[in-house]
Amino acid sequence: MIIAPERSRRPLGLASTKPHSRHDVERDDCPFCEGREDQSPPEVLAYREPGSATNGPGWSLRVVPNKYPAVGDYEFATTGKDLFFQSLPAFGRHEVVVECPFHEANPAQFSLARIASIFRAYRDRMLDLAADPWVAYVSAFKNVGAEAGASLAHSHSQLIALPLVPEAVQEDWDNAQRYDSEHGHCVYCAMLERELREGVRIVLESPGFVVLAPYASRFAYELWVLPRTHESCFESLTDEAALDLATLLKPLLGKLDAVLSAPAYNWYVRTGPLRSGRPPGFHWHLQLFPRTTRVAGFEWATGCFINAVPPERAASELRSARIEAAMSLAVDHG
Amino acid sequence: MIIAPERSRRPLGLASTKPHSRHDVERDDCPFCEGREDQSPPEVLAYREPGSATNGPGWSLRVVPNKYPAVGDYEFATTGKDLFFQSLPAFGRHEVVVECPFHEANPAQFSLARIASIFRAYRDRMLDLAADPWVAYVSAFKNVGAEAGASLAHSHSQLIALPLVPEAVQEDWDNAQRYDSEHGHCVYCAMLERELREGVRIVLESPGFVVLAPYASRFAYELWVLPRTHESCFESLTDEAALDLATLLKPLLGKLDAVLSAPAYNWYVRTGPLRSGRPPGFHWHLQLFPRTTRVAGFEWATGCFINAVPPERAASELRSARIEAAMSLAVDHG
Repeated sequence: MIIAPERSRRPLGLASTKPHSRHDVERDDCPFCEGREDQSPPEVLAYREPGSATNGPGWSLRVVPNKYPAVGDYEFATTGKDLFFQSLPAFGRHEVVVECPFHEANPAQFSLARIASIFRAYRDRMLDLAADPWVAYVSAFKNVGAEAGASLAHSHSQLIALPLVPEAVQEDWDNAQRYDSEHGHCVYCAMLERELREGVRIVLESPGFVVLAPYASRFAYELWVLPRTHESCFESLTDEAALDLATLLKPLLGKLDAVLSAPAYNWYVRTGPLRSGRPPGFHWHLQLFPRTTRVAGFEWATGCFINAVPPERAASELRSARIEAAMSLAVDHG
Repeated sequence: MIIAPERSRRPLGLASTKPHSRHDVERDDCPFCEGREDQSPPEVLAYREPGSATNGPGWSLRVVPNKYPAVGDYEFATTGKDLFFQSLPAFGRHEVVVECPFHEANPAQFSLARIASIFRAYRDRMLDLAADPWVAYVSAFKNVGAEAGASLAHSHSQLIALPLVPEAVQEDWDNAQRYDSEHGHCVYCAMLERELREGVRIVLESPGFVVLAPYASRFAYELWVLPRTHESCFESLTDEAALDLATLLKPLLGKLDAVLSAPAYNWYVRTGPLRSGRPPGFHWHLQLFPRTTRVAGFEWATGCFINAVPPERAASELRSARIEAAMSLAVDHG
């Protein structure tokens, strides 16, 4: 990873990045809005008004299978077991978390209770999917804005359940376990203690969580949200912790919108494999990064990222950012 | 890597990807056009008319230091040697290959000689940079279109010289050496032989090179261009081989433009470390991929890519694509 502040001055640098329109799909055609439940496959989870009918209106949050799944029940043509050409059927589950019944693209506008419900839904689905013995890992992630890969504006997250632990997760896990066996404690706990002492990369804190711009960030304004106490796996999240996380995330998203003019961004939960209990070393956290620049040839060529904004500067800008009055006063229309 | 053809039908799938405008920078302001040599740092290489003055007009191709370098001479603030916070000064060289004196954004419009000169320039600069003992690796890459990270439309490539072998290259190299020590031959040579026998993923062939859509491609329409004979390092490229490569690349780029409506794309040379001689196993090649979809939360969360176009389909479409008449008749305005 290369930190290159000089780069932010180039013609297509950060300054000239156009804010992403988050309203590119018409409200009238949105399949996620309340009343159009028939446009999605039947729900697998919903937080509903007591007495409201399954797959009808009256919900606050709803999880449905993805209509265009990346993984599924189907078997894909394979060339068999082979030294060069190895494949597995793309088994899995691909679900969508529709986060609100009304047409809102910006989760910074949500109430704290609604933001908390997103994380409760991740947890509830992970626990349910974990009952299927073939499920080894569930990835929970969110794309905000077309630049970040979202195909619909209506605020939503996605869950993908996989029959194997993905490469990037396994690598993090192996590294964390190696550190733990050498030092006798969690590398994330140690890093967090050190970051809190130094302070320069800390953005926000709540009773249970800390937001920081990680040292040697890959992306400009990359942010990590870590639980203060050691928790290996996300699915152990309590309702209280989900609300605490929301209390931190709402102002964080407001600050990001203020500093970067409502950028497109991604977040995802980095957590240990399901049913791994509390493996030594691993410490779940949320990784979030705005899409301020495009990953280009050099990054793909080398695996080395060029970041024009040192994390110390990103943290300082976000700490001092004032959330727009309209945003802080916003009430959830739900 | 997940091959998910179903995904190409979703709202923001391939079909609705807008062709990228390659002319978003005005010709009148372009710092790369002939006559504006004073807008770049002094040239480090130029193919020029005999008798024309250095840093003046009369060139056909020109390499200059990047005005906004990702790496350079300067020392970056470090936090010292530390278990958590390790850093190196961002030493290196960052150069730009200006591929033509006239304002052309699309390299498919270039003459064969001009396309060949791009690869001769990569080679000449690698050999020159290799004389500096601190240079361990030179990455040569090209971003076409803003979606692919290009900040200027005028056709250009970039070279970044690094004091270490980047992670992605080292990993490929380690894997290739491991295969070679187990099987006694190069994994790329074996893969190429197998692909030529099966044929389904082959796109184009020339006397010296083969273009194929690699098995389990990460990206839709990802393409690899491999030399038929075993060559570890790109810098051994002869002038004849550069011209042969151009003979293959020009129709390939024309076909890509025809199938994907002039997409943004990246290419880069994957080659062994400098001065590594002919290490067993490694086999340089060009990797090229159009930016048809955006890398989203799931890919960053897991390191696993979702590709909606099986490589067999991509190869078949490209094989049968007819290059537009305007394109095949184009003569280089240089």
